[in-house]
Amino acid sequence: MSADEFEIIERYFARQAMSREDVLLGIGDDAAVLQVPADSDLVLCMDTLVAGIHFPQHTSARAIGHKALAVNLSDLAAMGAAPVWATLSITLPENDAAWLAEFASGFFALAKQYGVQLVGGDTTRGPLSVTVQAHGFVPQGMALQRDSAQPGDRIYVTGSLGDAGLALLMQGEAALQERLDYPQPRVEAGQALRGLASAAIDISDGLLADLGHILEAGGQGATIRVDELPRSPTFMAALERAGEDRTSWSHALPLSAGDDYELCFTVPESRCVAAEKELQHLGVPVTAIGIIEPEPGIRCVRADGAVYRPQAAGYRHFSEDSHD
Amino acid sequence: MSADEFEIIERYFARQAMSREDVLLGIGDDAAVLQVPADSDLVLCMDTLVAGIHFPQHTSARAIGHKALAVNLSDLAAMGAAPVWATLSITLPENDAAWLAEFASGFFALAKQYGVQLVGGDTTRGPLSVTVQAHGFVPQGMALQRDSAQPGDRIYVTGSLGDAGLALLMQGEAALQERLDYPQPRVEAGQALRGLASAAIDISDGLLADLGHILEAGGQGATIRVDELPRSPTFMAALERAGEDRTSWSHALPLSAGDDYELCFTVPESRCVAAEKELQHLGVPVTAIGIIEPEPGIRCVRADGAVYRPQAAGYRHFSEDSHD
Repeated sequence: MSADEFEIIERYFARQAMSREDVLLGIGDDAAVLQVPADSDLVLCMDTLVAGIHFPQHTSARAIGHKALAVNLSDLAAMGAAPVWATLSITLPENDAAWLAEFASGFFALAKQYGVQLVGGDTTRGPLSVTVQAHGFVPQGMALQRDSAQPGDRIYVTGSLGDAGLALLMQGEAALQERLDYPQPRVEAGQALRGLASAAIDISDGLLADLGHILEAGGQGATIRVDELPRSPTFMAALERAGEDRTSWSHALPLSAGDDYELCFTVPESRCVAAEKELQHLGVPVTAIGIIEPEPGIRCVRADGAVYRPQAAGYRHFSEDSHD
Repeated sequence: MSADEFEIIERYFARQAMSREDVLLGIGDDAAVLQVPADSDLVLCMDTLVAGIHFPQHTSARAIGHKALAVNLSDLAAMGAAPVWATLSITLPENDAAWLAEFASGFFALAKQYGVQLVGGDTTRGPLSVTVQAHGFVPQGMALQRDSAQPGDRIYVTGSLGDAGLALLMQGEAALQERLDYPQPRVEAGQALRGLASAAIDISDGLLADLGHILEAGGQGATIRVDELPRSPTFMAALERAGEDRTSWSHALPLSAGDDYELCFTVPESRCVAAEKELQHLGVPVTAIGIIEPEPGIRCVRADGAVYRPQAAGYRHFSEDSHD
């Protein structure tokens, strides 16, 4: 690491307020030295965001700082873990002080919200990309996994789906853009679901894709009631203004669009009341959208029982229209 | 993560032989779940290598795989930590199966050597760069740090210095090139120095720069005996063949060139015999090169007592000559 890289880290990253007792040695040595409580398992995940691929090139530095941490906290939430530390590697085309200050403001605002301390990092020259590793604690043996859903378990999602996907298609909708740029990881909800959910995953690639991972891991299938997918009033109003076919797109986007960072989880029938109550207590909206079944595959049905076929082609068509 | 990214990870990274008992859940969920022994501190570090900056563009994929892990294991060694797990984020311009297979062979050969299990990762599209985070254990409170050297402590380095730097300047010297492409982290030496060394750092940026970090952290200075800097027979022979002024360059490169990944450490007089014996037992060459002093700054002296002035300009000149 060169002298000016040390300086960058000093100026924007080392001077944070957070100072956790389990951090014996933070930024500034060859490595960090940390303590994991004896009754906890350590949970960790790593995600890289590349400009032009994971976020549009024009995304603000503050939003990138927020999102780089948020997507990792979302992975920890899906494991039921409480976040504690993060490391951060930034590759930047040039030493841009204003960009770094903005990036840091987004990163540390979210870190502070969840008591996460930055314990290491690296800054290098190159095309813009950001890698964050997040670390969390979970009581021993209590981590939520993907592979333990059972036939008969109800399938739930938190919050609403499709907002971030619609923001990518319709520019100028501020509330949707906020959802895309500043996803709020479901940190408290994930922890509340320990011992209640049978499986959990965060929705980063779209409900069908991510629920698909739960089903593949457990060797099951599912039926999804598409009319019950939660959509925000903002989402419905934006579709209306755009004059789009609400019935069609209001199903396609919540099923297929990513970037919402809600949780999708399964709960055995006997624990559904308890799980709903826990999330209600936290003020986290939750919706039952379907059921796990032994037969592989995802079957989408309308309220009248008719089969709904997710149309990937239709989604692309919509995307082309809205960019005209 | 898209379907083909999952496939890449499956094919090259998930099928490794290593299966540590402290890994409760490895690759394939939202995050890994891991156990840290109650009597250990967790040590972690993260380094990013960017093509064209941290390694020449023509570097083989196998060497990049080795080096991306090696530089992190070297940081753990400088803390006295035993490596246990790694995470890996690769950004690649395209899905190149042959490149990934070569990269994986270099990465996993080194991982296997030290019992390191890959527990998470991410593959994304973009300009070539690799981020690795390494995790290690150290007995509670025993991590080696930078800031605890004391005046009177002897300064040591492991192995030999300047080989990797000379490889960058003189192409076609196979033994030097091996040193640059496949640095061997001093993992066993670092652990052997716990309780013996007062401070330690790995030499990635050059002896003067990295010893400088120890001195700044402790508020001290040092005298270095430049004629005693360890140089390999390969290094001396290559200089001779090139017809360079041996006396001058054989000092400048070991002082200033990076990428050797040897350890620089300090030992109180009372523990020097024990430290030398420990490393001798491991077969790790070690050389006393100077002493910590209260007065800030690094003073380089020749065997006859004359002051030696490291010439950054001279180093650049040499570089230009050899590229003619």
